[in-house]
Amino acid sequence: MLIRVINPNTTAGMTATVGEAARRVAAPGTKVVATQPDHGPVSIESHFDEAISAVGVLEEVMAGEREDADAYVIACFGDPGLLAARELTRAPVIGIAEAAFHMATLISTRFSVVTTLGRTGIIAEHLLEQYGFRHHCRRVRAAEIPVLDLEENGAAALNRIIDECHRARDQDNIGAIVLGCGGMADLTDEISEAVGLPVIEGVTAAVKLAESLVTLRLGTSKHGDLAFPRPKAFTGRFEHFSGLAPSGLPSTPNRD
Amino acid sequence: MLIRVINPNTTAGMTATVGEAARRVAAPGTKVVATQPDHGPVSIESHFDEAISAVGVLEEVMAGEREDADAYVIACFGDPGLLAARELTRAPVIGIAEAAFHMATLISTRFSVVTTLGRTGIIAEHLLEQYGFRHHCRRVRAAEIPVLDLEENGAAALNRIIDECHRARDQDNIGAIVLGCGGMADLTDEISEAVGLPVIEGVTAAVKLAESLVTLRLGTSKHGDLAFPRPKAFTGRFEHFSGLAPSGLPSTPNRD
Amino acid sequence: MLIRVINPNTTAGMTATVGEAARRVAAPGTKVVATQPDHGPVSIESHFDEAISAVGVLEEVMAGEREDADAYVIACFGDPGLLAARELTRAPVIGIAEAAFHMATLISTRFSVVTTLGRTGIIAEHLLEQYGFRHHCRRVRAAEIPVLDLEENGAAALNRIIDECHRARDQDNIGAIVLGCGGMADLTDEISEAVGLPVIEGVTAAVKLAESLVTLRLGTSKHGDLAFPRPKAFTGRFEHFSGLAPSGLPSTPNRD
Amino acid sequence: MLIRVINPNTTAGMTATVGEAARRVAAPGTKVVATQPDHGPVSIESHFDEAISAVGVLEEVMAGEREDADAYVIACFGDPGLLAARELTRAPVIGIAEAAFHMATLISTRFSVVTTLGRTGIIAEHLLEQYGFRHHCRRVRAAEIPVLDLEENGAAALNRIIDECHRARDQDNIGAIVLGCGGMADLTDEISEAVGLPVIEGVTAAVKLAESLVTLRLGTSKHGDLAFPRPKAFTGRFEHFSGLAPSGLPSTPNRD
Amino acid sequence: MLIRVINPNTTAGMTATVGEAARRVAAPGTKVVATQPDHGPVSIESHFDEAISAVGVLEEVMAGEREDADAYVIACFGDPGLLAARELTRAPVIGIAEAAFHMATLISTRFSVVTTLGRTGIIAEHLLEQYGFRHHCRRVRAAEIPVLDLEENGAAALNRIIDECHRARDQDNIGAIVLGCGGMADLTDEISEAVGLPVIEGVTAAVKLAESLVTLRLGTSKHGDLAFPRPKAFTGRFEHFSGLAPSGLPSTPNRD
Amino acid sequence: MLIRVINPNTTAGMTATVGEAARRVAAPGTKVVATQPDHGPVSIESHFDEAISAVGVLEEVMAGEREDADAYVIACFGDPGLLAARELTRAPVIGIAEAAFHMATLISTRFSVVTTLGRTGIIAEHLLEQYGFRHHCRRVRAAEIPVLDLEENGAAALNRIIDECHRARDQDNIGAIVLGCGGMADLTDEISEAVGLPVIEGVTAAVKLAESLVTLRLGTSKHGDLAFPRPKAFTGRFEHFSGLAPSGLPSTPNRD
Repeated sequence: MLIRVINPNTTAGMTATVGEAARRVAAPGTKVVATQPDHGPVSIESHFDEAISAVGVLEEVMAGEREDADAYVIACFGDPGLLAARELTRAPVIGIAEAAFHMATLISTRFSVVTTLGRTGIIAEHLLEQYGFRHHCRRVRAAEIPVLDLEENGAAALNRIIDECHRARDQDNIGAIVLGCGGMADLTDEISEAVGLPVIEGVTAAVKLAESLVTLRLGTSKHGDLAFPRPKAFTGRFEHFSGLAPSGLPSTPNRD
Repeated sequence: MLIRVINPNTTAGMTATVGEAARRVAAPGTKVVATQPDHGPVSIESHFDEAISAVGVLEEVMAGEREDADAYVIACFGDPGLLAARELTRAPVIGIAEAAFHMATLISTRFSVVTTLGRTGIIAEHLLEQYGFRHHCRRVRAAEIPVLDLEENGAAALNRIIDECHRARDQDNIGAIVLGCGGMADLTDEISEAVGLPVIEGVTAAVKLAESLVTLRLGTSKHGDLAFPRPKAFTGRFEHFSGLAPSGLPSTPNRD
Repeated sequence: MLIRVINPNTTAGMTATVGEAARRVAAPGTKVVATQPDHGPVSIESHFDEAISAVGVLEEVMAGEREDADAYVIACFGDPGLLAARELTRAPVIGIAEAAFHMATLISTRFSVVTTLGRTGIIAEHLLEQYGFRHHCRRVRAAEIPVLDLEENGAAALNRIIDECHRARDQDNIGAIVLGCGGMADLTDEISEAVGLPVIEGVTAAVKLAESLVTLRLGTSKHGDLAFPRPKAFTGRFEHFSGLAPSGLPSTPNRD
Repeated sequence: MLIRVINPNTTAGMTATVGEAARRVAAPGTKVVATQPDHGPVSIESHFDEAISAVGVLEEVMAGEREDADAYVIACFGDPGLLAARELTRAPVIGIAEAAFHMATLISTRFSVVTTLGRTGIIAEHLLEQYGFRHHCRRVRAAEIPVLDLEENGAAALNRIIDECHRARDQDNIGAIVLGCGGMADLTDEISEAVGLPVIEGVTAAVKLAESLVTLRLGTSKHGDLAFPRPKAFTGRFEHFSGLAPSGLPSTPNRD
Repeated sequence: MLIRVINPNTTAGMTATVGEAARRVAAPGTKVVATQPDHGPVSIESHFDEAISAVGVLEEVMAGEREDADAYVIACFGDPGLLAARELTRAPVIGIAEAAFHMATLISTRFSVVTTLGRTGIIAEHLLEQYGFRHHCRRVRAAEIPVLDLEENGAAALNRIIDECHRARDQDNIGAIVLGCGGMADLTDEISEAVGLPVIEGVTAAVKLAESLVTLRLGTSKHGDLAFPRPKAFTGRFEHFSGLAPSGLPSTPNRD
Repeated sequence: MLIRVINPNTTAGMTATVGEAARRVAAPGTKVVATQPDHGPVSIESHFDEAISAVGVLEEVMAGEREDADAYVIACFGDPGLLAARELTRAPVIGIAEAAFHMATLISTRFSVVTTLGRTGIIAEHLLEQYGFRHHCRRVRAAEIPVLDLEENGAAALNRIIDECHRARDQDNIGAIVLGCGGMADLTDEISEAVGLPVIEGVTAAVKLAESLVTLRLGTSKHGDLAFPRPKAFTGRFEHFSGLAPSGLPSTPNRD
């Protein structure tokens, strides 16, 4: 099974981080390919960064289709381009925010999110609403560290995150913590040990959900609103999307 | 990895059905033990049946703890005893209704449920509300067949289910269908083929979620409201629950 | 009119407490029978305790049917077995949590709950959601006292409850307080006097709601999902539930 | 105990109807006084009618305070002036819409409303939202009869209501029906018999809730947002409201 | 274009304040007439005040109809009589609470409300629920100043409001503040400057929404539940409402 | 005042349509510039089209900033890139879906949406949820016409839309209809006349909301989560976004 883990930003170090995290939990028969777009922001910390990054995510899904990927993971906590990506393929596509939220509700009744910058909290709130987990999440917290500090200033960043997790544990009446950034994918064990309650990270969660769906032969529904986009003309620097057509995968709804 | 799949009713044929379904999707290293309580109803078709069946579910979890089970699946669509079962163990416990709902939202934006009897629809509605998926489910439908007809009258039951699934597909503006009964665990392929859109069944979905959590070393949170029950006296036929204490599993929050 | 007040735990002292509270508010023509199961936990402080206690509750309803009870009260704040109990009878069945919530919304726009242990707060939250009162309740608070301390350590327990009620009054922007435990049924007056705002307790509230429904000749609907359970076989220690059938009450929907 | 049942419109026949309904269910020691404002609309079929009627309702509450009424019922399905009325008294004030909704959720899991004119359906929807019962009500239906037809054209009106109730029973997947007009207070038995499921009417329901609260010594909270209005000047035809002050009832929160 | 700005209380100073605020933002061709009822409370600080004030609001709308007003603004933050007023006219009718909420969501993702007295907070909460903005508002705060202090004790009142706005900015994780009283219509600039984030006031917001709808030729829908009230008899001091009939405006749905 | 109306697709004819509609309602002092991206899809009929179009929208906002635009309108019913666009400017940015929804709630209590293709209905549903109007919208309907048919096959498209609007009026219990596509901006009058109830179109609505905010000197909040994006490196075809910095507008929160 081939899972394409897409880091939506263009920082290679972060691609490596999420790739390693993914491989650490992947099943024996699973091949993880971690990629990043050629075009886009070096980190995603705003609606603007996220909107631009979605193009790269979609191109990575198209590239994956040419290599017959069995599933995709979008490794940024805003799940950029998730529904658009699902339109492009019969394979499952999993966002790391949704993956972490789903897993958190299976082992606790209430959780908090600890993310990087406060300004991205609204993105998590909107996703919680759309996915149905508004009431399962007690609070979205921020450690107020820029995303790239996770790469460049790791020890200090980790301390701030752990401090915020302690506050979540002691004040929020929760059973688990969700880490709100793909760049934290390698910190789960340390944080969980320091904080003493389950800590869920989305990259690893998404890999297991993707494997699960593939094994269950459940792919993105092509019946209704996630069907392949109608082929059409695109102009300018997006002309290569013109006449986009599904890659001819078998049409049985449960994949085989 | 040892997963205990608990059929909450006492019909051995149904235990066999869910066990086979579970094994069909389990990973190579996973051992599935399918069990059923000694005490309880032969099928679950009401709040009453469900309440009684919860006792057997909980005893099966305790039995599993003595055998060091790594995870549990509760194979009845009402998820009877789910939160109580989670209190009894550090291992993950997954209900098949929640499992099916979670998976459905990962491959479609909206789904419908097709269950057995209309009277149990309210159980699904309450679970959808509690889990957060009220708005992801367009409609809870019933084929109006008693649960045991799935065992004893399989062909006719299958036809009625497929008919209802056709109506769901054509009228509900959905991308996927969730089958609302553990006894339908062996029908997924036939129904999906007949109806032409993804059909999600909870037993198989729950097995994969359980495996996923075990691999991620995420167990039921013992911090807060799912901690082990306080040991206390029980009387009469439940005296054997007196002084119940956690089985001494290691205390690191992420299991190892 | 005969109202059966069922204490779901097996502690006789608590049965006496709820029985006295019930009798204090019952109408002249109402006979209150306070009972407790022979089988079950001595107190209810977890999902597990609650699940086991539901069996005893249901047996007490069946016993009540043989004595032509006119209504039932389930005197534990988690309302254990409520919907299952309703299936067993045409008579009204009232849980004390729902009773207290309903009454609280009739005399205030927002209320808080003060319960025993923090770990049971999630039970109140789930009930508030199911009953529709999520937004009427500002906060679920816990005095962090074990249930049986109400019996054995009354003065200290009362002080802790009053302290928490003061915090609720001063911080929560509320008009009333709901006491979250059947064992507090005799404390209402003292607490209300100490705190200076209305304090609602569920046992007394439920008795009045039960009397009201009986007088209105409104019984549990037997049309749809609360109809009598389909008779079926039960095994083992629950064999006596086999072939359960409605007791032949008149079939007019509004009782007479 | 003195309960003042206020018919918010000025049609004496309807006051008689609600008064009789109230007396039919009142406890032996309860005295029901049914009144109507001197000023206002002859029926309430719009937001406009309702807004004007609220003034009369409030004057009737003030009149009741001078007679030491123990509780109030507002006998129009829009519950006009309900929160304002609560501000004027320590006594409980119950609206018939809320009363009917509360009772309906105690005997069924889902209900429908059958009201007079479709245009007033939005009023019921807004109340369901505010009271928390949005999801307990499957549908608000209208028989499309003017309110006064209940008085003047009773037989034909009854038939239309029964027809609509049949549709509710057969199409809405419900367990009970709420009648959406005070003028239907005398039709409950006939409709319930014709339709074969519980039919809840608000006047009788409200009387029993009011009696219940009085017996429980629970009055409208004067702590917070339902406290007595700040006395102030009113001008013109409302000058008599100037300097309005609480009538000096004892200040213990639970009434005695 | 003629916009009638209705101050629902009878304090002329406040009418002047809202009139000036309205004129300050009105388009060149817009004539603003600021009025107040002859009958009603001098300020609105409770459900009771609000209910009485609604009558005056409605009479002011009727007066406006006789003068062919093109739109109406109800200049009290509780939006008293809003839906009733809409029934009386084809013209748009805008409440200042709804206007402020709508505008706030267009320039921020989350806002807080700062109002006068804590006891009126519940009115804002109910409106937020009805209008759909419950989750866009983080918190309803009160400066605890009586409404008329805005007139009589302006400097002190302003300071308290600014203090509360500072707390909102620093604690609530918001992007904007909504002022919760028509009497604050002249304070926007000072508060915004002091607090450093956008401050939305409803009178000015409502004037622009009213102008917008008129320009778009969109009037209150007369199809369905906001149609003109059915003419009928009124008694006593409201007899002049008898036989109320629409003023014969053209029946095209988009006004011209 | 300069309003930049951005057609997110690259079809010049549609840009002309929305520009004309905008100019038709703009105030005398308002200059409308209608633009379209150089790069992107010719129409927007899927999540994929929408994600790609967001880049062009954002570039058009940046272009507008260089020309000191006072406000922006995003003229596609999915409001693509809305929150990202708001980050880029102090000026108001209005999406046509939100604009239409807001206006619809001001003139009716419930509305339906009539859009082009059923597959885009989910986009409208998600926006309704995020904006808070889920319960104000009875139903999202589709005429099942491709977007460009509005340009190329106008008469037939109009007929299908009118047919669907008739069904909405007759079946949905609504007061108004929202047209769910920017390409319908010139059809409002015809449809409203044919259907007989108010028809709201988003381009014109958004222009008036944008003008209103500018007049009120209310711009997008730069306090909190809509602050300017943190400047950073972008790679590849998005390199021109590197080091993006706010254009140095004055920092007073209410614009001047």
